[in-house]
Formats: sequence, C-alpha cells, structure tokens
Amino acid sequence: MLTVNAYAAPSATAPLVKTTIERRDVGAKDVLIEIKYSGVCHSDIHTVRGEWGPIAYPQVVGHEIVGIVTEVGSEVSLHKVGDRVGVGCMVNSCRECVNCLAGMQNYCLAGNTQTYTSVDRDGTVTQGGYSTHIVVVEDFVLKVPESIPFEAAAPLLCAGITTFSPLAHWNAGPGKKVAVVGMGGLGHMAVKIAHAMGAEVTVLSQSLSKQDDGIRFGADHYYATSDPATFDTLANEFDLIINTVSAPVDLQAYLSLLRLDGTMVNVGAPAEPLPISVFGLMGNRRSYAASGIGSIGETQEMLDFCAEHGIAPETELIAVDYINEAYERVLASDVRYRFVIDVATLA
Amino acid sequence: MLTVNAYAAPSATAPLVKTTIERRDVGAKDVLIEIKYSGVCHSDIHTVRGEWGPIAYPQVVGHEIVGIVTEVGSEVSLHKVGDRVGVGCMVNSCRECVNCLAGMQNYCLAGNTQTYTSVDRDGTVTQGGYSTHIVVVEDFVLKVPESIPFEAAAPLLCAGITTFSPLAHWNAGPGKKVAVVGMGGLGHMAVKIAHAMGAEVTVLSQSLSKQDDGIRFGADHYYATSDPATFDTLANEFDLIINTVSAPVDLQAYLSLLRLDGTMVNVGAPAEPLPISVFGLMGNRRSYAASGIGSIGETQEMLDFCAEHGIAPETELIAVDYINEAYERVLASDVRYRFVIDVATLA
Repeated sequence: MLTVNAYAAPSATAPLVKTTIERRDVGAKDVLIEIKYSGVCHSDIHTVRGEWGPIAYPQVVGHEIVGIVTEVGSEVSLHKVGDRVGVGCMVNSCRECVNCLAGMQNYCLAGNTQTYTSVDRDGTVTQGGYSTHIVVVEDFVLKVPESIPFEAAAPLLCAGITTFSPLAHWNAGPGKKVAVVGMGGLGHMAVKIAHAMGAEVTVLSQSLSKQDDGIRFGADHYYATSDPATFDTLANEFDLIINTVSAPVDLQAYLSLLRLDGTMVNVGAPAEPLPISVFGLMGNRRSYAASGIGSIGETQEMLDFCAEHGIAPETELIAVDYINEAYERVLASDVRYRFVIDVATLA
Repeated sequence: MLTVNAYAAPSATAPLVKTTIERRDVGAKDVLIEIKYSGVCHSDIHTVRGEWGPIAYPQVVGHEIVGIVTEVGSEVSLHKVGDRVGVGCMVNSCRECVNCLAGMQNYCLAGNTQTYTSVDRDGTVTQGGYSTHIVVVEDFVLKVPESIPFEAAAPLLCAGITTFSPLAHWNAGPGKKVAVVGMGGLGHMAVKIAHAMGAEVTVLSQSLSKQDDGIRFGADHYYATSDPATFDTLANEFDLIINTVSAPVDLQAYLSLLRLDGTMVNVGAPAEPLPISVFGLMGNRRSYAASGIGSIGETQEMLDFCAEHGIAPETELIAVDYINEAYERVLASDVRYRFVIDVATLA
C-alpha cells in the first residue's frame, strides 16, 4: 500500500480538506502514475455534495488526470516509466459483457468502474485525481501526445471525450451543421472539436456574453437562446445538436431546430425525466439520444486528434487549496473554461 | 366537376352516411381513379370524431386507396387508363422545400397535402377514399403490382408504408433484432415486413392472445407486456423497436430493451408529451425517434418489396354500410387485422 496526499470531501456539506489516502500496491498489470494535473469537472461537485445519490466519505474526486508513469507491474506492456499518460472517468469494466467485448467499456452492462465512488475489484471505493498518485490497470491508461500542453491535456479526459465521442459517432464533418448548446467546460470543447472536424458550428448559449470566445474557438454562428427569435430563425437547420447543459431544457424548442434525420444528443443528464412530444420528433424524422463519455479506444483517438489539430481546452491553473472557491465559481459559471489543479501544490 | 358517391361523417358525433361529393375536373397532370377498395385506418376514426382537432363537415376519410385509372390528363406520362394504382396518405406537397426536393414529400416543411382534411391547391378540402372516384396528380399515384391481391393492397398504402419506411431506414435485416410493439393493423404488417427483410422479430403485445397469428406472420418470439418479467428477460436485447401503439407507453421500460446504439421509433403519436429519462437513453447510447408514413419513392419500393416477397395484410372485406360498426370493432381491437371497404357496394 502507498499512502499519498489528497484533497477529500469529508461530508456532503463540508469544504474539501487535505488528507491522505491509500493506493493499492502496483499489480502485475498496473501502472503507478505521479499525477501532475487534475481537471475540475462539474460532476465532481454534484458527486461530493450527494446530489447524484449518497456516497461514502471521505471521498476524493477528479476524473481528468494526467501524470507521469513512475512504476509498472511485471506484465505491463502498454506503458513504461517516464511516459506521459492520462486517466479519465473510468478505471476498469467487467471485460465480459457484449459492450466490453466490443471495446465500448463506457457502456459496460455491469457498470464500468468509475474513477471515483465505484467499488474497485479489491473491494475498496475508488478515489479520484485530486491526489498525488493513482494506480490504474494499464489498459485504462491513455497516452498523452507530447504536443498537447500537459495542464491543458487534463480536461480532455472528460470534457474532451464526452463531446468528441458523439461528434464522431454522429458524423460531424464537412457539410454538416452542428449546434452546441451551452458554452461551458464541455461546450467550448465541442466547438473546437466540431470545427476541427470540418462542421459548420453554431453556439446556442443563454446570452451573447461569450460570443467573442465562441467565434475564436471556431464557431461560425452564435445565438442567444434567451431571444425567442433564435428558435424561429434556426428552425429545421441542424444535422446534429450536442446539448452540454445538464439542467432541464425545453426539448420541443430544441428539437424543432433539427432538419430531416437530425439528432439531438444530451451529454449531460438532468435528474428528472423531460417531456418529449412525439409529434415534434415525427416532423423531419428527428431523433433524441444521449451519450456517455467514450470508450478507451475513442479516448485515445480523441487525444491524437487534438494533438494533430492543435486543440486544447482553455484552462485556469489553480493551487489545490483554492478548490472550494473554484467550486463556487464553477457553480456561478465564472470560469473560462476549466479549472485545473496543479498537483505540485499538494506534494 | 364530377359528382361521385361517398360515405361521409356529417359531424363529430353522428354516424357516417351515404352522400355525394364533387371531384375536380381532370387536369393536365391528373389521373382519375375508379376506386375499388379502401382500407379503414384508426386515423380515420380519430379524424372524423375531431380527436385530432376540429375539421370541416361533411368529411370523407380513407387514405388506403386502390383502384383503376379511367382517365388521364394530357400531360400524364406515369400512368395510363386501365392501370392498377394506389393512393396513400398524401396527394401533393409544396415541391419547393428542401425535403420535397430531396424526394421526402412526407416531411414537406410546408406540410404535405393530406388525402383528406387538407386544403387542396384549388382551395377545396380534400376528401378521402370512402368514395367511388378520386382525382390525384400523377406523381402521387403509386403502381400496384399485379401479384398483390387488390383488396389486400389497400392497407399497404398506410399501414404498409408507415412500418416499411422506418424498418428500411433503420436497417432492419439479417443479424438485427427487431421488436414490434402492438399487433394491430400496423403491427402485423411490421412483423411481416421485418421478417421478410431478414431480421429476427419479436412481438411485444399486451397479451398472448394473438401469439399464433404473430408466429404465422413471421415473428420469432412473442411476449406479453402485461408480464413484468418480459422487461427483465429482454433487457438490452434489440437493435430496433417499432412502436405502433399511439397510446402513451412507459418509455423507460421500452428503452431499457435497446442494446448499444439501438433506436426506438414511434409510428403513432400520443397527443400529450411523454416523460423521457436521459439517464435511460445514456445507457447503451440509445435513441428515441418518430417516423411519419414514407415518401412516394419509398411507398413504391414498399409495394414492389411486398409483391416480391408475397406479403399482404390480413383483411376483412366489408360493405360500406358496415363502416360504423367496423369503427366500433376497430376501437375494441376486434379486427384481424384491417377492414377494407368493397367500394362496389357504394356504386
């Protein structure tokens, strides 16, 4: 066992505090990673506050992890000491179900082992990336290309793959009109990736306050959803809508923006069911879908794509003891566009 | 103008009665069809009873029409006198919108001209197939292959195309598992067509009362949705679910039956929005969609497909003066599986 520094939530209501946690010994197929940067995802906040259900405390969150391999197990072949690597939202899966066998571990029918709050194969509860080290089985560890700035690479492991996967699956590319709903951590990555894929990109944001950023990130058009005229202007317009907003939206209003055979994909999930009009879907043979992160294969593909196209998230680097203030700023949408913890401040 | 016999609804609450209506003179691109058989669709009942909104009375319904061409306009090139032809749910469209230009008249953005209750290009309200003759522009008239029994061909024009189109669009075929929800007029056609396409077909019906029929029509499996165990047994099973039931269903229960990248498609539309869980969609990256009839091109393809595979609906031939009793039996699900009016009884 390895005792490492971490920043943990002691309860659903208390601020995160510095502590130590245990990491398992490096098994034959494991790699030990010295974490360098850890992104701050809105999911972290929902989780530690118990908003997605009760969890065990203390709990360390963080699932946008990059670092350097410092030890490998005897049977490890994919990574070696010194490699720049990343870990995202999952650290294992059942490896037996039809989806795992198809390489789609993110849709593991037994439920994949999430990077935090899951019960790991040794019976312990997984602890996330707000810590100095993590031990992960080698085939859930990604290679981070040298050309991606290391601190900017962290958010790719969740915000990047969560938007890349549906954009790739639903064929965003030349000749396709893609709308991105929301311009936060996920939304700004969706804009950059969809633009790099060659699609015509429109941002649908609450207001025009981030319009200049959106255009700079590659958006061709930018509309405020607070203006009802937006929904008339853009009726029957899009092949694909990526909705990055987890709060409930008026589905009928957004679905009406889809052209023939268009699809709206949620990458965030509101807790309560939303009303959907079948008549609204039937016009233009529209589809409504949802997508959850991405497979290990897709995640590596995304990292390589971002390296090739020079894409990286916009980040604000913080010391770990700023995390509680950072959470408040995330909740106030006061971040451009992703906080990243400099884990050196936790040493 | 041509005065022809018809059976019309005088009001939302009165029984249908025999009357006469006017058909327009045959224009340069029109064909005059002597109607031989006219199918009875559940939509007819909703419409005449004002359940889908107020309509003008008297109104003749019926949008599953087959007959013989008895006159053609001077510029008609697609059909000739004596041809066996059919007319379905639409008789025109705007011909200018992006969907019409793509040959998808059923998704005309201006709204296609429906076979009944629409305002036609001459300002009159369209009147349907419970009548002896109809005048239709030639390119909305289908060719009915000789090998399809004429009375059985009528229901293909709505029940056939409404199920064929989504089955073809979502690639029902060998290696695909398709569920059909509901075993009525549409459902029994969905079973026959999906089976002929080579898919493995499962019927999900309220009870097992039509199981023998379902197996005879080509279903490989048959389950009662009234048995909760059905939803456990079939979890994550299907590539495609065609829901032919217009009444509201528990979407989450049905969506849970979809495997990775599966799609559930409604071909009927409940009047009220249904609650949909995004978490339920996110597992297995599921999609929920709806499909409305089919294009003229797809309808011809469907007729040719049915001829090639020897597929026809199960029908009960009735005299026109039986229509009011037939409506009550449709509402009681007491028909195996489609009433067809012998229009000779209206002469």
